[in-house]
Amino acid sequence: MSTIDDLYPIPCAFCNISKTYPASPHSDVPSNPDPEKIDPQCHLILSTPLVLAFLDIMPIAPGHILLTTRKHYRKLSDLQSRTPSSSTWNSKREASEARDAARALGEWLPIVSRALCSVTGIEDWNVVQNNGERAAQVVPHIHFHLIPRYQEGREETQRNGRTDWGALKSWKMFGRGSREDLDDEEGKELARRLREAIRKEVDGEKVLQDGKSKL
Amino acid sequence: MSTIDDLYPIPCAFCNISKTYPASPHSDVPSNPDPEKIDPQCHLILSTPLVLAFLDIMPIAPGHILLTTRKHYRKLSDLQSRTPSSSTWNSKREASEARDAARALGEWLPIVSRALCSVTGIEDWNVVQNNGERAAQVVPHIHFHLIPRYQEGREETQRNGRTDWGALKSWKMFGRGSREDLDDEEGKELARRLREAIRKEVDGEKVLQDGKSKL
Repeated sequence: MSTIDDLYPIPCAFCNISKTYPASPHSDVPSNPDPEKIDPQCHLILSTPLVLAFLDIMPIAPGHILLTTRKHYRKLSDLQSRTPSSSTWNSKREASEARDAARALGEWLPIVSRALCSVTGIEDWNVVQNNGERAAQVVPHIHFHLIPRYQEGREETQRNGRTDWGALKSWKMFGRGSREDLDDEEGKELARRLREAIRKEVDGEKVLQDGKSKL
Repeated sequence: MSTIDDLYPIPCAFCNISKTYPASPHSDVPSNPDPEKIDPQCHLILSTPLVLAFLDIMPIAPGHILLTTRKHYRKLSDLQSRTPSSSTWNSKREASEARDAARALGEWLPIVSRALCSVTGIEDWNVVQNNGERAAQVVPHIHFHLIPRYQEGREETQRNGRTDWGALKSWKMFGRGSREDLDDEEGKELARRLREAIRKEVDGEKVLQDGKSKL
């Protein structure tokens, strides 16, 4: 028997990711998600009831992350969190959902940023969120880009055991220069390390201790 | 007698704005703040216990808004919202403050965006937050830019009684092209209209009704 999802497939790429990787009741950080559940592959690093984060498949720089809402909203202004006092129960519920999603985006941006810095060794990065075609929005589903800014021409080095991803490419301005497809093997390894770093951020020392005892 | 503030003046421009315009216990939207309390003038549109918004004094396009935290944090990663379970009461309090500030940034971005669209008539805009010099951060205090993207070469028109600010300048890419100083008279009027629009967003129909009864 067909479900409503079969009859009306979701045309939005990010809704498709959201549907393919539902939130786990156990953790906001997926333990070992299969990138090949979807085409093109999705390198997921965060999956909560309200937001998701994964690697951009056409990174401007290595480590380029997207943070999106789980639910479909086109522009930031569609997160309509306030309703007139006379509004219906349903529109009040939608407003409450929108407010929670907006807060979650705000709350996760610093956490994902810290993981990005920790894994790539960068210290500088841009957060960019585009609304509408004239603002260079491509996928019509709210998303924040986190774009590392590596030092230009930096040589490949290892610092404190961390790979210097800046060695791979020098930084490019948003929307300018060439963007190359993410290499799936590179993406898989990078996503694994980002999940580990986010998990440490979220659970603090507790997980560090647990991790040690499991080794 | 000198206060500690006299002895250690705040060198950060946005901390100075935060100090000059404290939050009101009555409303998140200041009623008629004096732009000349500070030099250069500040055209304030939002003033909550956690965040502030005001016009950029060197707008990339008319209506260019900055949304900042009230407290000083340099980069998004400094909003350290999680601490190890063993941490002190003080660091837990700081983490709780950081989490609230991060959530407030997320919550206000859509509301300020909607006010910006309503006042300027734009439909497309970028949200940009820069961390560090290589990412073009100038003031070392977290802030999100809201940058309207007007249709290029659009003629001055009135649509539904709204001034088409796009007529004044065509849009420019972030960090490219010339940025001009904000005209204080223009800023004052624009800020007044933005405050009115935010107030409507926040209070919904209630304020609309109150406003009508006061006319």
